[in-house]
Amino acid sequence: MDNLEYQEGRTELDTLGEFALIERLTDGFERHNDSTVFGVGDDAAVLGTGSTKTLVAVNTMVEGIHFDMMYTPLKHLGYKAVAAALSNIAAMNGVPRQIIVSIAVSNRYSVEALEELYAGIRLCCQRYDVDLVGGDTNSSRIGMVLTVTAIGEAEEKNVTYRSGASMHDLICVSGDLGSAYSGLLILEREKVTYKANPDFQPDLASYDYVLERFLKPEPRFDIVRQLASKGVVPTAMIDVSDGLASELLHICQCSKCGCEVYEERLPIDYQTTRVCSEMSHNMLPVSNALNGGGDYELLFTVAQKDYENMKDMENVHIIGHITEEGSPAVMVTPQNSTIRLVAQGFREKD
Amino acid sequence: MDNLEYQEGRTELDTLGEFALIERLTDGFERHNDSTVFGVGDDAAVLGTGSTKTLVAVNTMVEGIHFDMMYTPLKHLGYKAVAAALSNIAAMNGVPRQIIVSIAVSNRYSVEALEELYAGIRLCCQRYDVDLVGGDTNSSRIGMVLTVTAIGEAEEKNVTYRSGASMHDLICVSGDLGSAYSGLLILEREKVTYKANPDFQPDLASYDYVLERFLKPEPRFDIVRQLASKGVVPTAMIDVSDGLASELLHICQCSKCGCEVYEERLPIDYQTTRVCSEMSHNMLPVSNALNGGGDYELLFTVAQKDYENMKDMENVHIIGHITEEGSPAVMVTPQNSTIRLVAQGFREKD
Repeated sequence: MDNLEYQEGRTELDTLGEFALIERLTDGFERHNDSTVFGVGDDAAVLGTGSTKTLVAVNTMVEGIHFDMMYTPLKHLGYKAVAAALSNIAAMNGVPRQIIVSIAVSNRYSVEALEELYAGIRLCCQRYDVDLVGGDTNSSRIGMVLTVTAIGEAEEKNVTYRSGASMHDLICVSGDLGSAYSGLLILEREKVTYKANPDFQPDLASYDYVLERFLKPEPRFDIVRQLASKGVVPTAMIDVSDGLASELLHICQCSKCGCEVYEERLPIDYQTTRVCSEMSHNMLPVSNALNGGGDYELLFTVAQKDYENMKDMENVHIIGHITEEGSPAVMVTPQNSTIRLVAQGFREKD
Repeated sequence: MDNLEYQEGRTELDTLGEFALIERLTDGFERHNDSTVFGVGDDAAVLGTGSTKTLVAVNTMVEGIHFDMMYTPLKHLGYKAVAAALSNIAAMNGVPRQIIVSIAVSNRYSVEALEELYAGIRLCCQRYDVDLVGGDTNSSRIGMVLTVTAIGEAEEKNVTYRSGASMHDLICVSGDLGSAYSGLLILEREKVTYKANPDFQPDLASYDYVLERFLKPEPRFDIVRQLASKGVVPTAMIDVSDGLASELLHICQCSKCGCEVYEERLPIDYQTTRVCSEMSHNMLPVSNALNGGGDYELLFTVAQKDYENMKDMENVHIIGHITEEGSPAVMVTPQNSTIRLVAQGFREKD
């Protein structure tokens, strides 16, 4: 009777990328308010008529898609949900201020379980001086859906969009790439082993770094502060939630440019390399870095004139440069061949 | 392995009311920012250091809990999700400005289905001059979860909390009560009939009002404007999303007072009365009004001095008055007996 499956001319969701889908759905919406400075299409909305802008972003995590209760401690989940939402504020070069949490949850969860979740939410709020200003809890027939609205602010002149990169700008990334996804691979491997033999005690100690990167990522406000202290305003910025390739393509699309990044410049932790070597299909660490996702590092571009400021900045790596409009987004290998970066579709894991 | 079911000392979610649950979960959170004027515990958070305050509220709707795809047209669903979120801004005496939409959706839904949903979202945005400033779409293994963040503003002196009611204040409510729930009862009845006999064509024409109330509620910004034009700032306000009894109890709890409302003053539409008379267990229209929910009317209190302004205000009914601290919240029947209003627990339908 609900007929959702039987429409004529039906287009499946996975035939469009998430970006294209949102573009299609939000097409034809008009702007009614002066206080709407920037709406759909960046890490956060930019609002307000004064010189200090309000930044608002929403992040949703779905059980079975974004997290698996078999190996996700609830406290970590709460922390991560907040961290992921705040990361959008960092990606606008902003300071985080408040969050609102909305949970849909089945009665499989007890009050104590939600208290664990909120302990993680509180920890992340404390860590980043953020206030919880609203929380509602709804029933759900199955599993948990966790939506965090993050609110922050930035001076208008410091707000950094995806669209400001120009030719010759340097491409920078914080931290390292692919480690969160490597942590996920380890957890998925241990889950399979555990299912086959529930007495098995996994030894996870040697994977501590990649596991922490997956289970408890941090928004990089330390980078936002470093940039401010050097007086650098990036020309474009985005957070690495879906993998480097996808984020580079967003910057290139929004900024109408191409890019070149150098494979040997991509920062990859040795644990990531080791995890890849242990996986069955000879996984390349660089694939993890390009497509892994979940790192919540900052990817940004700066003008050439800021090179001196950037080259010794702690935890920041210059990985390439922006090329002219019409050029593709590519990675240059150590053998000097170029590989075209490709977009991800609407994926189960993102 | 996830052990959610097997905790010792487990407290079930449904043993606490939603209000008590949120209080317990958000206990111990500190405030870090001057721009956090009011956080958890009202219809919206109140933010900002200037005289114009930013209001932010989140509303989540879960398939199978808040809506049933068997009788909810997607366009109506989109409209309702936005209307319900905006209603929180109205309940703070504010003006709506922006929304952000976050959807978790299974591949049972097509791109065209989401376009229908967004057509409803757009219609509500147009109707209330609101800008869509963000939208993300996530996978979900089952069904749909729809979260709308509503952003609005109000001058500091006009922001109306749940906590400002004092003894002798008049209790007012807009529109009528119980009609949305009556619409739901009709749809549930037709669903049962349809399942028994799929060739059956329901005749819904004579229920048009209550069906529209359920499927396409409106946030009462017309009331907010009327109040402003008369120079009336309510002493307390809340929107009727869970039923009159529950909302009155919120106001009494937050304002530290009791209340008396008069049964014969409760505004009930004749279609609501008719639907109740058709239901099997001799349902009382007043029960619908007290406990039905989903009307999105405004319940507010005004000082006695505003009586002249209120008594002829269009679509507003004076239904009782606030009593002193320590008094119960009661309804007085036409026979002059008093019935104590009781809170709802954590319910499947809210």
